[in-house]
Amino acid sequence: MLLAEKALIDQIRHMAAGTGKSGSAGAMVRSARLNPAILVGIGDDCAVLRMPPRPNQKTDTLVTTDFTLEGIHFRRDWHPAGSVGHRCLVRGLSDIAAMGGEPVAAFLSLALPRKFPQSWVGLFARSLISLAEKYGLSFAGGDTAESPDGILADIVVVGSVPRGKAVLRSGARAGDRLYVSGELGGSAATVRQMTQKPKRKLNPRHYQRHFFPEPRLELGQILRERNLASAMIDTSDGLSTDLAHICEESGVGAELEAERIPRAVVGKPAWEVALKFALHGGEDYELLFTVPGSKRIPSHIAGVPITQIGHITRGRKIFLRNRAGVGHELEPRGWEHFRS
Amino acid sequence: MLLAEKALIDQIRHMAAGTGKSGSAGAMVRSARLNPAILVGIGDDCAVLRMPPRPNQKTDTLVTTDFTLEGIHFRRDWHPAGSVGHRCLVRGLSDIAAMGGEPVAAFLSLALPRKFPQSWVGLFARSLISLAEKYGLSFAGGDTAESPDGILADIVVVGSVPRGKAVLRSGARAGDRLYVSGELGGSAATVRQMTQKPKRKLNPRHYQRHFFPEPRLELGQILRERNLASAMIDTSDGLSTDLAHICEESGVGAELEAERIPRAVVGKPAWEVALKFALHGGEDYELLFTVPGSKRIPSHIAGVPITQIGHITRGRKIFLRNRAGVGHELEPRGWEHFRS
Repeated sequence: MLLAEKALIDQIRHMAAGTGKSGSAGAMVRSARLNPAILVGIGDDCAVLRMPPRPNQKTDTLVTTDFTLEGIHFRRDWHPAGSVGHRCLVRGLSDIAAMGGEPVAAFLSLALPRKFPQSWVGLFARSLISLAEKYGLSFAGGDTAESPDGILADIVVVGSVPRGKAVLRSGARAGDRLYVSGELGGSAATVRQMTQKPKRKLNPRHYQRHFFPEPRLELGQILRERNLASAMIDTSDGLSTDLAHICEESGVGAELEAERIPRAVVGKPAWEVALKFALHGGEDYELLFTVPGSKRIPSHIAGVPITQIGHITRGRKIFLRNRAGVGHELEPRGWEHFRS
Repeated sequence: MLLAEKALIDQIRHMAAGTGKSGSAGAMVRSARLNPAILVGIGDDCAVLRMPPRPNQKTDTLVTTDFTLEGIHFRRDWHPAGSVGHRCLVRGLSDIAAMGGEPVAAFLSLALPRKFPQSWVGLFARSLISLAEKYGLSFAGGDTAESPDGILADIVVVGSVPRGKAVLRSGARAGDRLYVSGELGGSAATVRQMTQKPKRKLNPRHYQRHFFPEPRLELGQILRERNLASAMIDTSDGLSTDLAHICEESGVGAELEAERIPRAVVGKPAWEVALKFALHGGEDYELLFTVPGSKRIPSHIAGVPITQIGHITRGRKIFLRNRAGVGHELEPRGWEHFRS
């Protein structure tokens, strides 16, 4: 094991678990700060979780896994270590949010090149841990390896949702209205800023949605609890692609109204991003969801603005209408991070 | 998404799930061949698992995650695609075995370079899937990405174990006897064969324990059911390192008898590997376990030979004794795959 990896494991073990029991004879690692569903965390062949996380619940277990690879999902010269750690975990938390679930435990597989700066690892780990603490989950394990090239991370998040209540992509029906939380395109527009010539380093404070996005966990849970969303997905790949996933899994189509799509405001001085970023840019980690016609949606839920941007149709295609009502078919355009 | 990755997802979706429901309106994907604990597999934001996997059980959930990185854990010129897929999943299955657990679902995060041969991916996926089918688990999700360099895989295995019954590393007590399954050193000796000059390609059939190791799942479950093992670990890092893990977590020491350590027989014509490979070589995926003095262990369990190789002591150190009874302290030597 490399020194940097050992340091990360130790940091995660001590900071997240708060036990300091490494090397002791203690079997079941428990602490007030560790999510109580985790009976055995880092330090055995497997983590041992007692699900459901609270007694007398009936729940299903959610599992999601997401890569974060240097040069593909981030660049070390653009993204501070804290932002890399934060975005790494947000990918998984946002998937849990999109099912209406609650996160319980995270697992980090991390490969670092030889001779890697300890300071980077420390900032990366602290950011991961503080985001986990904010949302009540704990790191329960993972793997470390030497990387052949660059930083390679894979985050697994395990969550829970009341039995049979997970909000799937496949529940949209013709006539449902289509909503999105927050604003779209902010992350992709930030990437465009960084890739444009002359290249420049951005101040993360003015581009929060890219560098430090918040997962919409509370919103997702409220939509599930109140039975409001018939289908839901997070906008990790971009609106056109993620909406296509809902339509494909539900066997429906959709009509979007271009004017209604909430476009992100980023930078300093602040400017509104172009429609193409809101349509095709990924990694905004907002929630896109459909609502049956009979149900009312407030303008804000859990402090997050909610906007109706279209509705679900019988046909299998997605149309985008402009202000004059003229429409054209919208093809999903995959979001390729820094390769665009 | 790259074509090769799409092909893998499709293959895993169709071969493992056996549903062919991609794109249909079906919500909960079920099939006879899919582990029944998996309610929603590939194709939503998260997999949805209903644990415990059988009704009216009380179980704990096991989670393990393991990297398999090209150039670190395998080399494409030495390891056929089928061996890479097999070893990738065995790493996780062996961790489940070491807890006495039963595997339920696997998740594959896979990053491939651009322009990657489809045939390789097909063989890799088939091998993964056939091993999963053999042990009753199914692929329930994962992630794909473009790799900046080489093949990067991270396998997550989720399993179950009767509540409170997971066999931990921390249960060894002074006086317990120390056992190992099968033979040790075969995998590391195989790697040495391949790294020696003149370099040569080996026939995987004569080096099964390296290219196609079997996880000791049935053995682990029997040891747990019959309450025989007080502590257990799999020999993924090598005997000296894995025994040190048991000693550290249990707060004990150990004495090993060099003559008793079962050394692997590999190659054609077959030869017995040197003691150093059995002591320090990793990736044999045998089970190393401790047994209280009052319990009897048969010479074979589930068809696998079981050998007593030493016992647990009060002191915190590990000693290796030769035939004459002369001992010296054994330091754990980390197993570094192809860097040795």
